[in-house]
Amino acid sequence: MRKLWINARVVTGAAGVTPGALEVLTEGDRIVAVGATLDRAGAELVDCGGALMTPALIDCHTHLVYGGNRAREFELRLEGASYEQIAREGGGIASTMAATRALSVDELVASALPRLDHLLAEGVGTVEIKSGYGLEIEAELNMLRAARRLAGIRPVRVVTSWLAAHALPPAYAGRAADYIREVAIAGLDMAHAEGLVDAVDAFCEGIAFSPDELEPLFAHAARLGLPVKLHAEQLTRSGGVQMAARHGALSADHVEYAVAEDAVAMAAAGTVAVLLPGAFYTLRETRLPPVGAFREHGVRMALATDCNPGTSPVTSLLLIMNMGATLFRLTVPECLDGVTGIAAAALGLGAETGRIAPGLSADFALWEAESVALLVNRIGFNPLKWRVFKGEIA
Amino acid sequence: MRKLWINARVVTGAAGVTPGALEVLTEGDRIVAVGATLDRAGAELVDCGGALMTPALIDCHTHLVYGGNRAREFELRLEGASYEQIAREGGGIASTMAATRALSVDELVASALPRLDHLLAEGVGTVEIKSGYGLEIEAELNMLRAARRLAGIRPVRVVTSWLAAHALPPAYAGRAADYIREVAIAGLDMAHAEGLVDAVDAFCEGIAFSPDELEPLFAHAARLGLPVKLHAEQLTRSGGVQMAARHGALSADHVEYAVAEDAVAMAAAGTVAVLLPGAFYTLRETRLPPVGAFREHGVRMALATDCNPGTSPVTSLLLIMNMGATLFRLTVPECLDGVTGIAAAALGLGAETGRIAPGLSADFALWEAESVALLVNRIGFNPLKWRVFKGEIA
Ligand SMILES: [Zn+2]
Ligand SMILES: [Zn+2]
Repeated sequence: MRKLWINARVVTGAAGVTPGALEVLTEGDRIVAVGATLDRAGAELVDCGGALMTPALIDCHTHLVYGGNRAREFELRLEGASYEQIAREGGGIASTMAATRALSVDELVASALPRLDHLLAEGVGTVEIKSGYGLEIEAELNMLRAARRLAGIRPVRVVTSWLAAHALPPAYAGRAADYIREVAIAGLDMAHAEGLVDAVDAFCEGIAFSPDELEPLFAHAARLGLPVKLHAEQLTRSGGVQMAARHGALSADHVEYAVAEDAVAMAAAGTVAVLLPGAFYTLRETRLPPVGAFREHGVRMALATDCNPGTSPVTSLLLIMNMGATLFRLTVPECLDGVTGIAAAALGLGAETGRIAPGLSADFALWEAESVALLVNRIGFNPLKWRVFKGEIA
Repeated sequence: MRKLWINARVVTGAAGVTPGALEVLTEGDRIVAVGATLDRAGAELVDCGGALMTPALIDCHTHLVYGGNRAREFELRLEGASYEQIAREGGGIASTMAATRALSVDELVASALPRLDHLLAEGVGTVEIKSGYGLEIEAELNMLRAARRLAGIRPVRVVTSWLAAHALPPAYAGRAADYIREVAIAGLDMAHAEGLVDAVDAFCEGIAFSPDELEPLFAHAARLGLPVKLHAEQLTRSGGVQMAARHGALSADHVEYAVAEDAVAMAAAGTVAVLLPGAFYTLRETRLPPVGAFREHGVRMALATDCNPGTSPVTSLLLIMNMGATLFRLTVPECLDGVTGIAAAALGLGAETGRIAPGLSADFALWEAESVALLVNRIGFNPLKWRVFKGEIA
C-alpha cells in the first residue's frame, strides 16, 4: 500500500530543525522516498493539513514496567522524614522490588499500560524498557515478558534491556559477585534463550556495582552477541563510562559526573551519552553533565524520560525536551535529535527509525505547531495531531 | 436538579489530603451537603466508580491571553545569542506587546483557547487571566474582553486582573508616572465601567515600576472598590510586598526575595503568597521563596502556572504542583491547598469555590489516582476522569 504524505512541513531529523515543504512516500511500513514533489501514481494521498512532521519520538531509557508507586515516600520526604524512617516504612527501591515481584506478567502489563499510553500520546514510536526491579531471575524475566507483551498490545516498537544488575537485593547483601553470577548472568542466559533481551544494562555506582563487579556480566553479554549500555557517573565518578566505552557500549546514561577524558573515550567508542534531566530535576542535582565536552569531542547526546517510580516519575518526553534545553542548555536541534535520530543510535536502531529517510520505518509524529522550537519551549502542552507507526496513523 | 455523588474517595480540601468515604449532594450549581450517607430521596445518583474527588483546581495567576509566542527567542538564547541580539530581532516583552496589539478580540480568544483547554483537561474550574501585553488602553481592554469571552465559550470561571502596569512601553520611556496616569489609571476607569475588571495587578520590580509609582494606581483601585494584587520581590527586594500588604492586597506573587518581615506584614494583611515555580524553573533561579517564614507566620501559599509566553510557558497545573513540591519543598497538602482553597482565597473567592463544602459551587475534579500524593508525585501524567463545573460533568 503506497501512501503519499503531502502538505506537511517536514523536519527529516537529519539536517536541523527548519521544516521543508517535502512530500514523503511510504510503502507498507517503509519510507521509500522523500522529496519536493513525488510521483503520485498508485499512491493514496494523505493530506497532513500543513502540520509539522518530525520523526516519531524515541524514549531510549525507561523503567516503564514496575509494580506499586513511591508517592507515599515522596510525601514523607517532603514532611521531613529521614531516610531511616522511610526505609522503616519499606521505602526505596526495596519497596518497588517487593511490589514488582508481587505482580504477574498480566498485572505488570496492566500497570504499565497507562504510562505507555501517555508516551504514545506525545508521538513516541519506540520505547526502551528495562528489567531491574525483580532482582531475582523469575521476576526479572516477567518484567521483560511484560515489556514484549506491551509491543503486541499497542502499535509501538519496544526495545528491552536486561538490567538485573540494577541494585543488590537484600538477600545478597555483601555478595555482589555472587549476585552477578547467580542472578544477573544465569538469568541473562535464560532471558536470552527466551528472546527477551535486546541489550544488557547495569547500574555502575557506589551504591550499586563497581566496574570490576560488572566486568563478567559485560563479558558474558559479548559472548551472547548482545550489546551493552550502562548507568554511569550519575552521583559520583565511578569509572563506569571508561568501562562502558571499553566494551563498545551503545550508551552511557546519566553521566553528570563524566569528565572530558570520558567524553574522549565515548567518542572513540561511538557511545551515545543519554542525558536524563527528569532524574536530575527530581533529585535536585546541581552537577550538570559535561555538555560542552560532549560537543567538543563529538559525543552524540540523547534525551530520555528515565521513567521510574522513584527518581524520575516522568511520562512526558516533550517535557524532557524542555528540561534538556532549560536545565542542560541543549539547543533546539540537539533536543529534537536527542529524542529521534540519536535516541535511535543509543538503541542500535539508527538504520531502522529516528529519521525521515528512504529505507527507514515510516514512523512519524505530526504536530499542530509552528516550529520545533515551540515544541521544546512549551511546557505541559501536547499539540500532537497524528502518530504514525510503520506507515499507519496509530 | 439534585445529584448525589457516590462512591468517591473525597478530599474536601479543608482538612488535609486523606480521602474520606463521603457522599456529596448537589442541587443545581451548589453543594448542599457532604456526609457519610446522605438522603437519596429525589436525587439522581452519580456513581464515581471509586475515583478520588478533589475540589476543581484553580489557576490563580495566568497571562493566558496574548499574541504570538517567544519560541524563536528561546531558541536563540540556547544558541548563545546575547540579549542585545534578541532585542534586535524584536524579542522580549516588546515582541509580545506587538503581537498582542495586532490581534482582534476574536483572534486573542482563538489563540488562548488551546491553552485554556489544556488547563481544563487537568481539572481546572477557575482561571485568573491578566491583561498586560497591550500596554495601551484599547489593547489592554481587548485582552480582558477576550478573557471574559472565554468564560462564555467554555464551562469555566474566569477572574480578570487589570495589569496595564506590567511594563513601561517604549512610547513612555522615562515617563512612568505619565504611563500610570494616562494608561493604567485612565484605562482602568474604562475597563471597570465595561465590567471587565475583578482586581488590579501591577509588576513591582527594578525593571518595571516602583512602589511609589504604583501608589496612585492602588489608591484609585480602592476608590473603585477593586481589590489589588502585586507581582513583587521576584528578582530583587523592591518593597512591593510591604506596599501590597499596606493596601490589603489579595496576594503578592512570586516573592522569592521576600524576607521574614514581609511574611509578618502579609500575615497581618491576610495577603496570600502566590508561588510561581514555573517561572523560577524557566529562569533557572536559585533564590527560593521564604517558605519557612511563610509557614511560621501563617501566610497562606498558593501555586499557579504564571502561564505566559516568556518566563513560564506552562499550561499544566499538575506539573506546577510537582514543581511546588520538588523545587520549593511544599508538602503534598500544601500543594493541593495551593491550587484549591488558598488559590480561591488569592482571588477573593474563598466562599465560592476551592473546597467541597455546603454552600459552595459544585466544582470538582475526579481522578483515577490512588492518592493526592500520586497526583503531585507523577510528572507529565494526567489521570483526570471527570471535571465537574457548577454541578455538571464538563
Ligand atoms: Zn535508569
Ligand atoms: Zn505574572
